[in-house]
Amino acid sequence: MTIEEMAEKIAAGDRRALARAITLVESGRADHREQAAELLEALKGTGRQAIRVGLSGTPGVGKSTFIESFGCMLTGKGLKVAVLAVDPSSTRSGGSILGDKTRMERLSRDPKAFIRPSPSQSQLGGVARRTREAIALCEAAGFDVVLIETVGVGQSETMVAEMADIFVLLLAPAGGDELQGVKRGIMEMADLILVNKADGDLKPAATRTCADYAGALKLLRKRPQDPQGFPKATMVSALEEAGLEKAWDEMMALIEWRRENGFFEGTRAQQARFWFGEEVRRAMLARLETEAARKALSELGDAVAEGEITPARAAQTVLKRVNEG
Amino acid sequence: MTIEEMAEKIAAGDRRALARAITLVESGRADHREQAAELLEALKGTGRQAIRVGLSGTPGVGKSTFIESFGCMLTGKGLKVAVLAVDPSSTRSGGSILGDKTRMERLSRDPKAFIRPSPSQSQLGGVARRTREAIALCEAAGFDVVLIETVGVGQSETMVAEMADIFVLLLAPAGGDELQGVKRGIMEMADLILVNKADGDLKPAATRTCADYAGALKLLRKRPQDPQGFPKATMVSALEEAGLEKAWDEMMALIEWRRENGFFEGTRAQQARFWFGEEVRRAMLARLETEAARKALSELGDAVAEGEITPARAAQTVLKRVNEG
Repeated sequence: MTIEEMAEKIAAGDRRALARAITLVESGRADHREQAAELLEALKGTGRQAIRVGLSGTPGVGKSTFIESFGCMLTGKGLKVAVLAVDPSSTRSGGSILGDKTRMERLSRDPKAFIRPSPSQSQLGGVARRTREAIALCEAAGFDVVLIETVGVGQSETMVAEMADIFVLLLAPAGGDELQGVKRGIMEMADLILVNKADGDLKPAATRTCADYAGALKLLRKRPQDPQGFPKATMVSALEEAGLEKAWDEMMALIEWRRENGFFEGTRAQQARFWFGEEVRRAMLARLETEAARKALSELGDAVAEGEITPARAAQTVLKRVNEG
Repeated sequence: MTIEEMAEKIAAGDRRALARAITLVESGRADHREQAAELLEALKGTGRQAIRVGLSGTPGVGKSTFIESFGCMLTGKGLKVAVLAVDPSSTRSGGSILGDKTRMERLSRDPKAFIRPSPSQSQLGGVARRTREAIALCEAAGFDVVLIETVGVGQSETMVAEMADIFVLLLAPAGGDELQGVKRGIMEMADLILVNKADGDLKPAATRTCADYAGALKLLRKRPQDPQGFPKATMVSALEEAGLEKAWDEMMALIEWRRENGFFEGTRAQQARFWFGEEVRRAMLARLETEAARKALSELGDAVAEGEITPARAAQTVLKRVNEG
């Protein structure tokens, strides 16, 4: 299949072509990178946009169940839903948070849904580029909503927030009346906080937790991209499929307001500019990853460690070799 | 003055040549960088080593008074002492933590001491390189001890710890019995905690704080580079010049043990290797700082933001221009 054929099939909504294309953008091989760039450039013409929803939540908040229920609710409305995952831990564990599709059995069988497990990657920077490119492919394939799931660790949330139109934080009801150790930085990124498990015995705790977070959100500095009442905290029960419509309505209300006020396109433009800069920096540093560069770094590193040469002079030598090679 | 002459003068302990050389390594100009590299390479031959003491402490713990008293105690023993400062905040404030030498009046008049204010810099990475190079210059000039002072904010402590033989954390007596909000990561870097102001009314609080930290240090994971009893917490009074000899003895005991057990040279080698890698990465990224590169980044950034070109293709274009230019 040529790149042109692949682009045509993706634009026609062919899921196998989409899956193959995502595998292509996940590859680090130079020829694959060139093909991926060509493919993305070819698909730019579709002009399609999905709503990109970043979703974060630590293990135990019921993220899979939420995505299953929420995703099925959306497909029930006739919307096409893609689910992507960013899991920085999968590098170490070898696993992946969405690898086991049995966790979302209904959604994975849904013809209007597309679930892609997170690849095991070596670097968060690489994960970022591949996820952004997978989003672009899903948009070109005509998906209406792209859910980008991440676990609440490290820098992955910031990264997902930087590629999403709205960032949703999923929480479980807290045991006491304290906030659940959610870092302030994460709170400040959230557009919508969803307190899950608002069902059965946990309902009173969910109500209290939701009120606590609503209060905490009010104390944050007002952001220009938010209308009155946002960021907001509300309750859902993924298990009982309750509150999901309301959550979606809140997301849509926010997005509509942002579209009307120029923040939707403005944020996307700023995000594109940011990722372009990151990509350039990564590509510059990738020149230190070639075999010749690694060899120079290792040999001169030894000489530096032995005190035979100063770091400054050794660095000049490496750069000369890299730039000439 | 040629670089060769400058090197000779520095090796002979000429303080004015040393001051000029530090100004040279602080410069970002390409020709100055080349001269600095030449100078450092020329001075490598002296083979002199100082004891590099990293010193951190938030404003209010009495850092200046401590450096003044501690430095004078060391010069009183016949040791030559250089004081350098790393102040990431000086970029913004325009000031510098050691700019006002009147804060260390006695030490600044001491012929065996050399105090260098922190330069105002644009980037922590730049500060790191310049500080390391200033350390190397002070060592070549025959100083026995180099104190590298930093304030307890951001990444500057990690940076100073990565260029010091021992890392000392200076604290003030705590009000209650709680630990003073010292971040765990900083605690884990410390070789020695000094509780200052163990004098007058504050002595009981200092005693309690010191015991609290001694307890907290015992709970940290044992590090291979520490002998029995380290890291350690002890009390000083910079005001009354009490406990300074003991603090110095502790430092020397630790350094002797590390020398005998291969950790002193081992850590230096590992630090040199680390800084060499950092320098190479910085130099690669510096290629994006030229006027032509900035122009390409700005123009293509606009095109990316407008959706006219994908970030991947735009990045390729910039790199092509940078590598050809």
